[in-house]
Amino acid sequence: MRIALDAMGGDFAPEAVVKGAVMAAQELKNGEVILLLGKEDVLHTLLQENGYTGSNISVMHASQVIEMGEHPTKALTQKPDSSIALGYGLLKAQKADAFCSAGNTGAMLVGAMFSVKAIEGILRPSIASFVPKLSGGLGVILDVGANADCKPEVLEQFGELGSIYAKYVLDIQNPKVGLMNLGEEEGKGTVNTQAAHQRLKLNKDINFIGNIEGRDIFNDKADVIVCDGYTGNIIVKMAESLYDILHQKGIHDPFFDKFNYETEGGSPILGINGNAVIGHGVSSPRAICNMVLLAQKMAVSKISERFRKNYSA
Amino acid sequence: MRIALDAMGGDFAPEAVVKGAVMAAQELKNGEVILLLGKEDVLHTLLQENGYTGSNISVMHASQVIEMGEHPTKALTQKPDSSIALGYGLLKAQKADAFCSAGNTGAMLVGAMFSVKAIEGILRPSIASFVPKLSGGLGVILDVGANADCKPEVLEQFGELGSIYAKYVLDIQNPKVGLMNLGEEEGKGTVNTQAAHQRLKLNKDINFIGNIEGRDIFNDKADVIVCDGYTGNIIVKMAESLYDILHQKGIHDPFFDKFNYETEGGSPILGINGNAVIGHGVSSPRAICNMVLLAQKMAVSKISERFRKNYSA
Repeated sequence: MRIALDAMGGDFAPEAVVKGAVMAAQELKNGEVILLLGKEDVLHTLLQENGYTGSNISVMHASQVIEMGEHPTKALTQKPDSSIALGYGLLKAQKADAFCSAGNTGAMLVGAMFSVKAIEGILRPSIASFVPKLSGGLGVILDVGANADCKPEVLEQFGELGSIYAKYVLDIQNPKVGLMNLGEEEGKGTVNTQAAHQRLKLNKDINFIGNIEGRDIFNDKADVIVCDGYTGNIIVKMAESLYDILHQKGIHDPFFDKFNYETEGGSPILGINGNAVIGHGVSSPRAICNMVLLAQKMAVSKISERFRKNYSA
Repeated sequence: MRIALDAMGGDFAPEAVVKGAVMAAQELKNGEVILLLGKEDVLHTLLQENGYTGSNISVMHASQVIEMGEHPTKALTQKPDSSIALGYGLLKAQKADAFCSAGNTGAMLVGAMFSVKAIEGILRPSIASFVPKLSGGLGVILDVGANADCKPEVLEQFGELGSIYAKYVLDIQNPKVGLMNLGEEEGKGTVNTQAAHQRLKLNKDINFIGNIEGRDIFNDKADVIVCDGYTGNIIVKMAESLYDILHQKGIHDPFFDKFNYETEGGSPILGINGNAVIGHGVSSPRAICNMVLLAQKMAVSKISERFRKNYSA
């Protein structure tokens, strides 16, 4: 199994990425390898500086770097030898089982659509994220930013994608799907969420439990939280900011510490032909390490294949 | 000045409401009176049981009660002598300077539209709420539930309403208005927020600072947070749930303690001909007390009149 990692992506790349790769390498099993993508000489020097002497990190040369502020489509066209283009190339050629990057989010999304592409039958691929549950474990929330506006049928499909993810990656049997809304009653919400509610209710492939509210994000009502990318993005960033505030105040607690973006390390792109994870721009070595381990978990559970099988059936 | 208080509204009414009224009565200035609306005999007994001997609480009889689960429009039609109908009647006849209730939220909203009505020029009255700022003080967020879907021109007007509220009730000079969004760049967001951004930017009556993100809710970027009621409702309920979790864990902090719904006691309805506040269904005596004091602050600052003057000009 090979996990491609964009060594040039993120505000603290390549130093933080190489450090994170070295940390992750210690956690990988036999036969699991990290492909570090970026400027070969720089990466070899950094691996050496970090005292890495193992055999489960390989460097692959990419001469170009897509910067954080670049226009995604332009950058991908103008930089065919960038680490992001290389990563998706490997994924498409099945020379990597997963690809992750803390670089330009837009380029990671556009790159996915241009190379491995959306799985047939998927209306809109989605970026998912995780919410810690008070009772332990994690819930999955989607979308968190790939699709600001979502039609009812797209929200319905997010319920399916999230269920499959929760089942095979988070090991939750018969995951409960909740629709993020402003009230529990089915008539509540926007025109879109009202219509999505009816679709989710009729969908026999998922365990839809109805609407959930802002106060239910961290309780056990739902394992899968369905919302448009505008709403999910606000929820996830608000949670992150609360972690930062607690941290600044010196308040530590096992539950709230999970709000730290570093804990999961990244957000999976669901619904494309390949396993891809987008990391936070500010990724620290620990975040990078966890992003690699998340990508590995997705590859082990063959989540992208499971989506493909589900929609080709 | 007379503040009408629905004694029959809320899960713990009338006991908690009377207790809260007695607490608030101690904080009021000379000439400020609470009109306690509900079943006369019950309220007199409760006032006695609470040892109230002052002269700034008057009881006004209302023979009917709108229950929490009732259909708002039906209930208001069928119960013309309910405490909510009486409260709005007093507000309309200018026999009360403010009216507040922790009862049926829908009935409070519908009641406002049927009796005092929206101010001419107001597209959609809004329910506002408050977010504590890390640097101290409060920000105002609107809408938090009256309007799930909001057109761009409605969001623009929320920016105006919020600015006037922040200026005259929260004493913030030249309040900064931020549009809740998933990214800072002006091209980001839903079709609606993109259009609202352009309108807010051109509006010369407000100090629009651009988009804000989920991580900016508690910092000083914006004093007024503009969003649709679906989004605002989720944000406010998520913040409340975090207070509950911290409280359960025994974690106390002056900043996070302000996430407690009791601190402000209620959510003002902005844009109607009168000062009205809706409290939380679970309101405790302390919450009721603070709701009355919020209604008093709104009446003192003549906020409804200021809205009226602004739109009639």
